[in-house]
Amino acid sequence: MIRVTIWNENFHERMAEFDEKFRPYQEKVLAVHPNGLHNTLADLVRELGDEVTIRTATLDMPDAGLPQEVLDDTDVLLWWGHMAHDQVPDEVVDRVQQAVLNGMGLIVLHSAHHSKVFKRLMGTTCDICWRDDTFERVFCVEPSHPIAQGLPRYFELDVEECYGERFDIPKPDDVVFMAWHDIGEVLRCGCTFTRGYGKIFYFQPGHETNRSYYNQNVRTIIKNAVKWAAPHCRRTVHGAPHIDVTLEELRLGKK
Amino acid sequence: MIRVTIWNENFHERMAEFDEKFRPYQEKVLAVHPNGLHNTLADLVRELGDEVTIRTATLDMPDAGLPQEVLDDTDVLLWWGHMAHDQVPDEVVDRVQQAVLNGMGLIVLHSAHHSKVFKRLMGTTCDICWRDDTFERVFCVEPSHPIAQGLPRYFELDVEECYGERFDIPKPDDVVFMAWHDIGEVLRCGCTFTRGYGKIFYFQPGHETNRSYYNQNVRTIIKNAVKWAAPHCRRTVHGAPHIDVTLEELRLGKK
Amino acid sequence: MIRVTIWNENFHERMAEFDEKFRPYQEKVLAVHPNGLHNTLADLVRELGDEVTIRTATLDMPDAGLPQEVLDDTDVLLWWGHMAHDQVPDEVVDRVQQAVLNGMGLIVLHSAHHSKVFKRLMGTTCDICWRDDTFERVFCVEPSHPIAQGLPRYFELDVEECYGERFDIPKPDDVVFMAWHDIGEVLRCGCTFTRGYGKIFYFQPGHETNRSYYNQNVRTIIKNAVKWAAPHCRRTVHGAPHIDVTLEELRLGKK
Amino acid sequence: MIRVTIWNENFHERMAEFDEKFRPYQEKVLAVHPNGLHNTLADLVRELGDEVTIRTATLDMPDAGLPQEVLDDTDVLLWWGHMAHDQVPDEVVDRVQQAVLNGMGLIVLHSAHHSKVFKRLMGTTCDICWRDDTFERVFCVEPSHPIAQGLPRYFELDVEECYGERFDIPKPDDVVFMAWHDIGEVLRCGCTFTRGYGKIFYFQPGHETNRSYYNQNVRTIIKNAVKWAAPHCRRTVHGAPHIDVTLEELRLGKK
Repeated sequence: MIRVTIWNENFHERMAEFDEKFRPYQEKVLAVHPNGLHNTLADLVRELGDEVTIRTATLDMPDAGLPQEVLDDTDVLLWWGHMAHDQVPDEVVDRVQQAVLNGMGLIVLHSAHHSKVFKRLMGTTCDICWRDDTFERVFCVEPSHPIAQGLPRYFELDVEECYGERFDIPKPDDVVFMAWHDIGEVLRCGCTFTRGYGKIFYFQPGHETNRSYYNQNVRTIIKNAVKWAAPHCRRTVHGAPHIDVTLEELRLGKK
Repeated sequence: MIRVTIWNENFHERMAEFDEKFRPYQEKVLAVHPNGLHNTLADLVRELGDEVTIRTATLDMPDAGLPQEVLDDTDVLLWWGHMAHDQVPDEVVDRVQQAVLNGMGLIVLHSAHHSKVFKRLMGTTCDICWRDDTFERVFCVEPSHPIAQGLPRYFELDVEECYGERFDIPKPDDVVFMAWHDIGEVLRCGCTFTRGYGKIFYFQPGHETNRSYYNQNVRTIIKNAVKWAAPHCRRTVHGAPHIDVTLEELRLGKK
Repeated sequence: MIRVTIWNENFHERMAEFDEKFRPYQEKVLAVHPNGLHNTLADLVRELGDEVTIRTATLDMPDAGLPQEVLDDTDVLLWWGHMAHDQVPDEVVDRVQQAVLNGMGLIVLHSAHHSKVFKRLMGTTCDICWRDDTFERVFCVEPSHPIAQGLPRYFELDVEECYGERFDIPKPDDVVFMAWHDIGEVLRCGCTFTRGYGKIFYFQPGHETNRSYYNQNVRTIIKNAVKWAAPHCRRTVHGAPHIDVTLEELRLGKK
Repeated sequence: MIRVTIWNENFHERMAEFDEKFRPYQEKVLAVHPNGLHNTLADLVRELGDEVTIRTATLDMPDAGLPQEVLDDTDVLLWWGHMAHDQVPDEVVDRVQQAVLNGMGLIVLHSAHHSKVFKRLMGTTCDICWRDDTFERVFCVEPSHPIAQGLPRYFELDVEECYGERFDIPKPDDVVFMAWHDIGEVLRCGCTFTRGYGKIFYFQPGHETNRSYYNQNVRTIIKNAVKWAAPHCRRTVHGAPHIDVTLEELRLGKK
């Protein structure tokens, strides 16, 4: 049983509360994600059935929805954010980083490439170039990877936001997917990383006004990623203990 | 001083000798490479000036142009081949493989992805998908790599043969360049590998009827690659020697 | 259900048939592996219960025990060999290589680092240094890897053959385990590779006269590796097909 | 010309100023490094002659010795710290991180694995296990790497502090060196990383009371690392610019 927590900054869904001029955009987002991006994602992950339990959390909840007890009860955390990265408290970032280092899986979606959490774990700016409303082909270049299970050579997204290289990330463990955009850009769009005992997957599709999370191949990728990122155990990263051994204990010189 | 040997199968340049029907294609190739692809490449590498000495070798020479004494006198070998891969004798392949394992650099160009030498060193089929006559953008995704020195974010090739993923290679050490083709394909088009003490660079542009080797960015890349692939020393891969030590020699138990 | 085939050259077990002087060594090996190394390994893998079906194959069988139909019916192949590498027919090597590229998992054990199959897939000499009868500590340095599931920081093998660096292999995908030997050597002793659609795990412990395959941690590692190397699907590596698309099909220019 | 800045926390060299009880240890350190660790390292780097200019900087200087103008004038920064990691101001850490991302090389020495700068760039705890006063063998496992130039298969350090796995770092680009310690520990002791446009090398030997920086092989490694880490150019990591192109500019649809 994989305990999944889906975090969403939940800003686009409520942005008219901050300024009425945002209402048209909010309605555009809600037309695609009637119950918020977190619930779109929850419905997707729910297709894993008995393999998962699902919780959603949003920035507007106490502790940004991620108190320690929630993280302690989470095997895989999905993170969607865009406009409100700076409002995530540093202590939440510390806590999520530590949870990942201790083994929690993390799936970083779309514009969350610029989230504090991802930048903290990468150590880089995670900058990209970008442009809205492009046609995308997603190529599977590491077909034996667990996240690629069931995927074709490539699939297409009619309208998705283009992110372009250079993507300022450390070298991924695996570049499972590469994107082709009709405006002449490429991206390492599906990348895995290991940090401490935790597995991380970044995946680019998923702009708030686009329908990529309803695409069957995207759904397969995210479900595969949940299963892949689930830890086989949780451990505490060890600190820096003194080694208490003697040569005798090691049986050196016994021969 | 880097001793460079440029190998070319030299088939397109002489194909009318085999069948007169090939004359138009041969003329098309010679229009781009009047002295053969090896000499086009030699002119390019010659821009490194006093840093290099250059030799060319072709399949139609004795020992396919690569007797042991030539390999012993080579720091970096460039390899261009397309139609005549199967005519390269296995003993030449053995010899080149061993030279690479002992430290010789190898630059594998365009359709030489299917050369016996490259497949031997990779252990895979090195298959790709392909189509002629496309428009290509080459993106520099590892800008701090020595081969990327002086390159912009991307550059364009008006007409080049498209190779598409999945490229059946082992995971490269570095994917320095990624290609975007207007027909909707991507490729890890500039990849490095280490095998034994030898460094290998594969680079996709360079179809026999295209002018990519006259492109200034392509020229920079190949010259950078020659410098990068040059070994700091040549060693013989060691065989499997018995370890002749005693614990006393290791000073174990001295404490 | 994972279909496992365990291949053993089965030479040490029968070496007195070739020369009576080998009888003492044969008896020493059979004292540890009464039914041959393949059956010791089969008993180990059998602990996976209903998850696996098991077949053994040996060099002395027709087609070296590995006709195409056996490979077609194999998800994961274990390979143990030492003295008879050269007697494995090249067509069997071709067949196993192709099966791995098409997705079959391969677990390469101990002195099989020098098997034709492993060298073919690596493209290098796979040379090491070596000495018998040392004390080994195996460190788990990639604890979140599936093959590391359930393993402690390190475990010890009282008597095992030391293999020492430099191990002439391409850079592994993951170095899951590192070995410390009391004679002053280290080794990347548990390494993963991907070739084509196939996953490969090399693991150093397992000399024919030692009892490492009865060690609980070693048994866990090999069982984990069987599960990890099992393909999620088998595909044929694709050859080099022409890309038959039109720009119109790609919907380029639609904007 | 490579502009090198050598940073030392300079605490062990002055620790008796903080508490007189530290005088014996201070004297022990100064016996090995009469002018401080930074000057021991400066003397070492100075052997590169005309290839370098050298500056030293210490924590007790204004801005911790690293105001922006110093970083702007630095190609490669060496960092030695141990007891005073927490006293390095966060704005200095920010500045150094940004300089590395923009291309400055960074060489992280010994206990600086726990420096704020290194942890920031890695995104992990960088924890290790440790014990003083062990005998170490350093193995060169990536002999074709520029940092390995001129190194033997292994060399020995009579007395050095043992650091043991698991070293909580992201997967290095290259593990150039591996350590064997007589107390039964191994370490990936010489590791390279790329972050942004900057190259990073971590190297474990160099405890304040040991003489490793006087070892000829260690000196070679650090000099090689200075040359390797020097950027071929400095760039500003690009932020996240909008892509201003039109399909026409790309000449899409032209065919």
